[in-house]
Amino acid sequence: MHRFFVDTAPAERAFLAGEQARHIATVLRLQPGERIALVADGTEHEVELQAVAPAQVTGRVVARRRVTTELAFRLTLAFAVLKGDRSEEIVDAASQLGVSRLVPFTSERSVVRDLSPAKRERWSKVAREAAETSHRGVVPAIDALIAWPALLEGLDRPIVLWEEATEPRPMDALGAGDVTLVVGPEGGLTAEEVALARGRGATIASLGKRILRAETAAIASVAIVVGARDRR
Amino acid sequence: MHRFFVDTAPAERAFLAGEQARHIATVLRLQPGERIALVADGTEHEVELQAVAPAQVTGRVVARRRVTTELAFRLTLAFAVLKGDRSEEIVDAASQLGVSRLVPFTSERSVVRDLSPAKRERWSKVAREAAETSHRGVVPAIDALIAWPALLEGLDRPIVLWEEATEPRPMDALGAGDVTLVVGPEGGLTAEEVALARGRGATIASLGKRILRAETAAIASVAIVVGARDRR
Repeated sequence: MHRFFVDTAPAERAFLAGEQARHIATVLRLQPGERIALVADGTEHEVELQAVAPAQVTGRVVARRRVTTELAFRLTLAFAVLKGDRSEEIVDAASQLGVSRLVPFTSERSVVRDLSPAKRERWSKVAREAAETSHRGVVPAIDALIAWPALLEGLDRPIVLWEEATEPRPMDALGAGDVTLVVGPEGGLTAEEVALARGRGATIASLGKRILRAETAAIASVAIVVGARDRR
Repeated sequence: MHRFFVDTAPAERAFLAGEQARHIATVLRLQPGERIALVADGTEHEVELQAVAPAQVTGRVVARRRVTTELAFRLTLAFAVLKGDRSEEIVDAASQLGVSRLVPFTSERSVVRDLSPAKRERWSKVAREAAETSHRGVVPAIDALIAWPALLEGLDRPIVLWEEATEPRPMDALGAGDVTLVVGPEGGLTAEEVALARGRGATIASLGKRILRAETAAIASVAIVVGARDRR
């Protein structure tokens, strides 16, 4: 059953327009009588289609259920924006794996120092599609771009992965509640940036002795936390 | 210091030709007196360059040390070949993370059913470069393509990640020794294929309730095992 995120939960009847209607009518070519799932804020609304046209799709809600695929804790990933489409790989994989919030940042050794509205919009689309295909109940939020010192103000006891750290491993730095991971740019965070983070209460952790590319470090750290904490 | 894998450990003097010499002379533009590391079978040979030309680079070995970045266990990843360059993403990330051996396979729902010599050669290059930049001591081996039933014959008690399994998680399925992970194609392994694997002693495990794309599942499962077992 195809899944679509909607901003507002449908009541008894559902109406879709814009890109979603066009996609259902012209790409998926769904027919009246077929069912789709509309997901709003963690609840899945099963909808039987009644009329399908590229401009509008209508249907009636036949079932409602709470989505059970979300992690039991909030996982935030702060990552330095990377060149090319490598940030997009992070947004895609992290959204599949269950992150709640993505925070792009710049730091001293960042090569990419801005985030255009078009690129942020593109990331939102990638995050939404990843959340749809992975059967999630919510779409990860994507923050505006922020610089290193300001980033630290807004995060609750983050775990900063640093290639010059030798311990602890993220597995051993996890508390019981929400988790925030921070991964620097290609070239790494500077010792001064790491000292500033430590002074603000961050834990500095190591992903092991191998030197990972920034996007691999970001995806691996999310996977490790999900692997360790999502054991239901 | 730039790192290069070589097939044969240098004795007192080192000679490089071919692509490596060309790269050192014309891309990196290294000069006599500068140092590089030649890595062979887990040992790093620090070499001071003596003569640099695109056809041949020579130098003398000034130090030798055992590489300490390898995992203390052998980690094998068997993965269904995917469309486009998505298999290459797996080879790249898994090689950075520390896998010893990569085993591409086909199964019932595989769309890509062959692996050309050129593509396998390309993967070998990706694995070698990933191992170089991540400071590893060995390059992961890449097996020839194999079909599902034959795959199971050659693997020692594999853990098969299956999206229809609910437990155990890979963290809870790990023994004390070497680890083999198996990730199916987009569209998944069939129930019959999974039953066959179970009959051959495989553990069937779950990466959680979210449905991951095949390449994300492969990279995440490797990261989870490394995160759980590489705690020195």
